[in-house]
Amino acid sequence: MHQNYLKAHPWSIIEKGFDSDRIKSSESIFSLGNGAMGQRANFEERYSGPTFRGSYIAGVYYPDKTRVGWWKNGYPEYFAKVLNAPNWIGIDVEIDGEQLDLFTCKKVKDFCRELNMKEGWYKRSFIAVLQNDVEINVEVCRFLSLKYDEVGAVKYSVTPLSGAAEIIFTPYVDGGISNEDSNWDDVFWDIQSCGFEGEMGYVQSKTNKTNFQVCTAMITQVLLDGTKVDILAEKHEAPTTVSQCYTIHVDQGETVSLEKYAGYTTCFHHDQTKLVQASKNGLDKAVLLGFEELLLIQKKSWYEIWETSDISIEGDIKAQQGIRFNIFQLNQTYLGKDPRLNIGPKGFTGEKYGGSTYWDTEAYCIPFYLATKSQAVAENLLTYRHNHLSRAIENAEKLGFNSGAALFPMVTMNGEECHNEWEITFEEIHRNGAIAFAIHNFIRYTADWNYVMEKGIDVLIGIARFWAQRATFSPKKNKYVILGVTGPNEYENNINNNWYTNYLAKWCLEFTAKTLVEIAKKDEAAHQRATDRAGLSQNELSHWEQITKNMYFPYDEKSQVYLQQDGFLDKEYHKTVDQLNPSDRPINQKWSWDRILRSPYIKQADVLQGFYFFEDHFTHEELERHFDFYEPLTVHESSLSPCVHSILAAKLGRMDQAYDFYLRTSRLDLDDYNKEVHEGLHITSMAGTWMSIVEGFAGMRVQNDTLAFNPQIPKDWTSYSFKVNFRGTIITVQVNQSSVKVKTDSESKLIILINGDQLTVSIKEPKIIQL
Amino acid sequence: MHQNYLKAHPWSIIEKGFDSDRIKSSESIFSLGNGAMGQRANFEERYSGPTFRGSYIAGVYYPDKTRVGWWKNGYPEYFAKVLNAPNWIGIDVEIDGEQLDLFTCKKVKDFCRELNMKEGWYKRSFIAVLQNDVEINVEVCRFLSLKYDEVGAVKYSVTPLSGAAEIIFTPYVDGGISNEDSNWDDVFWDIQSCGFEGEMGYVQSKTNKTNFQVCTAMITQVLLDGTKVDILAEKHEAPTTVSQCYTIHVDQGETVSLEKYAGYTTCFHHDQTKLVQASKNGLDKAVLLGFEELLLIQKKSWYEIWETSDISIEGDIKAQQGIRFNIFQLNQTYLGKDPRLNIGPKGFTGEKYGGSTYWDTEAYCIPFYLATKSQAVAENLLTYRHNHLSRAIENAEKLGFNSGAALFPMVTMNGEECHNEWEITFEEIHRNGAIAFAIHNFIRYTADWNYVMEKGIDVLIGIARFWAQRATFSPKKNKYVILGVTGPNEYENNINNNWYTNYLAKWCLEFTAKTLVEIAKKDEAAHQRATDRAGLSQNELSHWEQITKNMYFPYDEKSQVYLQQDGFLDKEYHKTVDQLNPSDRPINQKWSWDRILRSPYIKQADVLQGFYFFEDHFTHEELERHFDFYEPLTVHESSLSPCVHSILAAKLGRMDQAYDFYLRTSRLDLDDYNKEVHEGLHITSMAGTWMSIVEGFAGMRVQNDTLAFNPQIPKDWTSYSFKVNFRGTIITVQVNQSSVKVKTDSESKLIILINGDQLTVSIKEPKIIQL
Repeated sequence: MHQNYLKAHPWSIIEKGFDSDRIKSSESIFSLGNGAMGQRANFEERYSGPTFRGSYIAGVYYPDKTRVGWWKNGYPEYFAKVLNAPNWIGIDVEIDGEQLDLFTCKKVKDFCRELNMKEGWYKRSFIAVLQNDVEINVEVCRFLSLKYDEVGAVKYSVTPLSGAAEIIFTPYVDGGISNEDSNWDDVFWDIQSCGFEGEMGYVQSKTNKTNFQVCTAMITQVLLDGTKVDILAEKHEAPTTVSQCYTIHVDQGETVSLEKYAGYTTCFHHDQTKLVQASKNGLDKAVLLGFEELLLIQKKSWYEIWETSDISIEGDIKAQQGIRFNIFQLNQTYLGKDPRLNIGPKGFTGEKYGGSTYWDTEAYCIPFYLATKSQAVAENLLTYRHNHLSRAIENAEKLGFNSGAALFPMVTMNGEECHNEWEITFEEIHRNGAIAFAIHNFIRYTADWNYVMEKGIDVLIGIARFWAQRATFSPKKNKYVILGVTGPNEYENNINNNWYTNYLAKWCLEFTAKTLVEIAKKDEAAHQRATDRAGLSQNELSHWEQITKNMYFPYDEKSQVYLQQDGFLDKEYHKTVDQLNPSDRPINQKWSWDRILRSPYIKQADVLQGFYFFEDHFTHEELERHFDFYEPLTVHESSLSPCVHSILAAKLGRMDQAYDFYLRTSRLDLDDYNKEVHEGLHITSMAGTWMSIVEGFAGMRVQNDTLAFNPQIPKDWTSYSFKVNFRGTIITVQVNQSSVKVKTDSESKLIILINGDQLTVSIKEPKIIQL
Repeated sequence: MHQNYLKAHPWSIIEKGFDSDRIKSSESIFSLGNGAMGQRANFEERYSGPTFRGSYIAGVYYPDKTRVGWWKNGYPEYFAKVLNAPNWIGIDVEIDGEQLDLFTCKKVKDFCRELNMKEGWYKRSFIAVLQNDVEINVEVCRFLSLKYDEVGAVKYSVTPLSGAAEIIFTPYVDGGISNEDSNWDDVFWDIQSCGFEGEMGYVQSKTNKTNFQVCTAMITQVLLDGTKVDILAEKHEAPTTVSQCYTIHVDQGETVSLEKYAGYTTCFHHDQTKLVQASKNGLDKAVLLGFEELLLIQKKSWYEIWETSDISIEGDIKAQQGIRFNIFQLNQTYLGKDPRLNIGPKGFTGEKYGGSTYWDTEAYCIPFYLATKSQAVAENLLTYRHNHLSRAIENAEKLGFNSGAALFPMVTMNGEECHNEWEITFEEIHRNGAIAFAIHNFIRYTADWNYVMEKGIDVLIGIARFWAQRATFSPKKNKYVILGVTGPNEYENNINNNWYTNYLAKWCLEFTAKTLVEIAKKDEAAHQRATDRAGLSQNELSHWEQITKNMYFPYDEKSQVYLQQDGFLDKEYHKTVDQLNPSDRPINQKWSWDRILRSPYIKQADVLQGFYFFEDHFTHEELERHFDFYEPLTVHESSLSPCVHSILAAKLGRMDQAYDFYLRTSRLDLDDYNKEVHEGLHITSMAGTWMSIVEGFAGMRVQNDTLAFNPQIPKDWTSYSFKVNFRGTIITVQVNQSSVKVKTDSESKLIILINGDQLTVSIKEPKIIQL
């Protein structure tokens, strides 16, 4: 079933052998990014076989017209799309008059790709026999600088093997690109100018409607056996492209290399009238440093990332490779420098799911960034939502809410909703709760109240107001109910009293009220400012309390479980998921939507998502009962599902099951479980994989300002270790089959709980505890 | 609020005065059709102002690609569209070098339109002062022959008033037309050939994908003061058009007329290689008869229609005009000659709602056609569904059903589903019940078992099998439930146990079983054939019985009403519909879909639709209780809703209320209540208006093979009378404020129930009963 063609390696992803059917998948897997830009692992040279060309710039999108069958009031007019951006990696390569094209050449030998995750570069090498019988060896190395995030570098080396050859390199920058994902064949980019500024070739273009200005530029140079050659390039300018043309005579066995320094500058960081100059400054600097020095800097940058975020696993090389791939891709996608950016479900690896920001960020990514980066990164993610608060209020108003109620969008680029299925857009409102929960998580982890006092509290009040209006009183039940929602389990639509949503709504109201009290305690003036900004009245708080005290939760007395929604037990239920015929799986591909909706099968953790968020609210027995009730019904057809089940299974001491769930997430893309890796990677769910180890196996929690662990280890692993950044101290936890070792990088003593025991740890006092 | 610009008249629709803002609305209102073809009341001459040009051919459609935001398994690939067909009415008119165009000419005086419903023709007259100051009088008469339904005729007469003038008539046939309603700007028609065959100009074209072949043709002649002039036309052929050009010198006060005989022949009725000849034969015959004779035949055809279907109202001219408009339009749309045709919601007056056939046909139109036409007409409508049975079985299979379960489509042209909202397509399954109910209605009205024994029973078994699989057993309720449906009230989606659906499902199972028993009694061999065809087993019948005996119905003990669905009483309900702010109405335009879904407001009769279908199953008190519960919540935002409430109100003796509901349906289009008449007329709901009078005010029912009436009369009416065809006898019922008179056209004696009293009526023995 799996595309098991990648070699196991602790630090690298390695592909051996050329197979044109794997090109699109490998283009996803070997994608590069540096938080500001990125692209799929498209070939630099021409390729006439099936390929999905994609280059992306963080924050650049296009509001495509909404496409629906029947319009419903409240639908957003536009659907934001990730935009394919001008291509800066392209290099045409001609050898003795023939264009190099691996799809049409006579033979490809020794094809190999390596994505070196430790050092952050991607290399491709092969021997090609052309139709003209010339044989060449090619080696290409590419990376996107983390430090200079407007710069990427390619070194493209060709060695003729069959005799001397005339080689023509034509590096280019191309603004005339199209999108895979387009509703109406609109043109997304408008070329502003293109040409040369000294040796730099550039295309300046602008997105239509959104008017993002981008300059795509390159500087190139040629080396023979590693020595720079002074050779003049022919320059060409076409309406959407600039290119250079180098013709070089190369002897047999001699290696000619083209170094290409290129990338984007954008109006996010520069005056849009000075983009060409900004590109020039950046690329000149890169050329001055040179390829090898830039690469050295790159290695250093990645070394620093791994220093605070690595997970190493001994005794299971595929698991090791999987977890590092996840951590690597998360860091390629988002580095937390800019509160205008967020984490798209496909990062820089594809276009699916259009908009950039889902509740994935708050529910899955924030814990990862909180623990592996400085606190500023998670704070930027929270600030992103605060910046969108007025849009969220508008969004709620469009649906008929008022008085400052805020409904954050299901999918967004700029704060506006850009999804258009009513059952999701209007009804999957639990997303609002995850956004509040992330604020709670941030405070719990950092103990920092600054964000919440001046910004977060405004978000919380907007969210609480939404719930206060969205919950309605049922005289029949004599309780508050929440009707017409879609829970995390999107295989149920327009249901009443989704337990998870009701629980989250109640918690949001309580948490907002409690947070207001906390703020008042800490800083009465801040409290006053917050209530003034919101125009919050005592009446509102009383109304909130009324709702929290009288919220309805569907519950079955007989089985003593909270029901996913009203009427859940009316469903026909003959088989658990493991009893389903494998030919029926995945049900979202095999069954009609009608059948899925009426089945009891659960797409992703729903009630159990609530048990994960609010584990302290329930006993071990309650968790066990609910896990045993819902797990057998869960098909995990969302990449976000298995990690939650893994964490809960670990908590229940069911390590074998926890490990099984872990395996489904950690190599989801590497092994292409869902046969869709060609569309891009599942970036946000990668944070869930990290959670499975750190919160699941190692049982990390923050309890009353103290970091706590309940470490377990899968039976096939020799050991695993990971690092987290807790309030400025890097803590390393190493777990093997018999003991756990904890150390820190700090002189100061830190109290840590291991299986409930308080240990004092410092750089001088690592602790080892037998398990 | 209403476009109150039409003159009241018992038999005609009359518009006086020219207003370019009313053109699109009047184009709908004055539409013509003859069951086989029809068109909006577009001008023959050029018109450069806002217009919606539409000509339609019964049965001709195009499968446009489905447009959705997110694809769901089970969606149909195509969405059938009514197609704008080649234009045959066009006549360019040039006077002294200036094209006649009412939008740009200097002045339009005495503009008048008349749609004569009694005789089936449409006339338009005006005086125009052109930019060149020439003043002309124009009179145009058009009709579509009912008898020769491939032929339409136009007589276009111009009289120069300001002096002699040179008039050029350019009649044409144009195949280069576009659609108002198109998803992807596809080209729908492909021109096969065009040219002249003798004096006949024609364009033969073919629909893309569906390959319907159509020949559009015309023969024209010119008359001066009524006398045919021998004048040669210049002939022109363009890629998509053929035209003729007549240049005539006309003296002041002299009238020149162009007679144009034109229309379609199609591959439905002719060999597609012989369409041009077929057109020639038809048009030659029309020319031979001549305009006046054809018109005489037309008047006779309509006289015959009115003979068996008229409703006359004394004392309320607007109500009179309204009901005749409805009866007229129904007859223009569908005459029951061809079981391949059905009744589209917009008939030949617009393109909205794409496909042709909804459950409207069975629930609303069948009673009208049963009572006003020969039995063959309703039988053709039933046969239409029988012809689609195998497609309905396929449709159910696509959703995961099996073993011959049939789900008829929500919208269809050819038996395939062509609607694409999951909550409707997959879930609004009650349509299946209406199709079974129509068979019941047919038997009840005609006492004819032939259709059901050989065809109808197959449809019933397919439907019963669907319900038997769609109802599932809830261990929790210990009952059969039907989950995930949309009832007639489409303001609720994906609900559980919609009472109407559950009730209908139970009834379908019972009725199918009972019908099998009846067939066995009447004709054991027919019964054997039916069970053989279906492969029906005793086990299946036992399973059906099991379900009917244990079907769950949501019920509220306190208010003693059946609930529209599970959880209906959890809804927030502060106001009845009449207490809503008028600025909130219609809620489907003013509220978000989210707000509508969670509100208790009902789009159209839902529980009450069931009380209408199955009135004998409930007591008067039960009806009253349910009516009083649901009526105040019903917004009637479907044109199909008020008639049902009208009939029930009449049954409850609430004539004022019944009359109010009647008013909302009878002049819905004439007064443009919903501000949408420019899109076309609400054809199928017009049958509901008829029902409001005949079943509502007059209380007509069939009870044990006897026609029964419980006549009442709105207090403002002097009298009303109508005719129905009951098993071959035409019965005329006249009701005034004090009495009812019943007569028949037959020698044989017929027993009729009036207010429960048995009367024997024959042509010689009319009966008058005091009320």
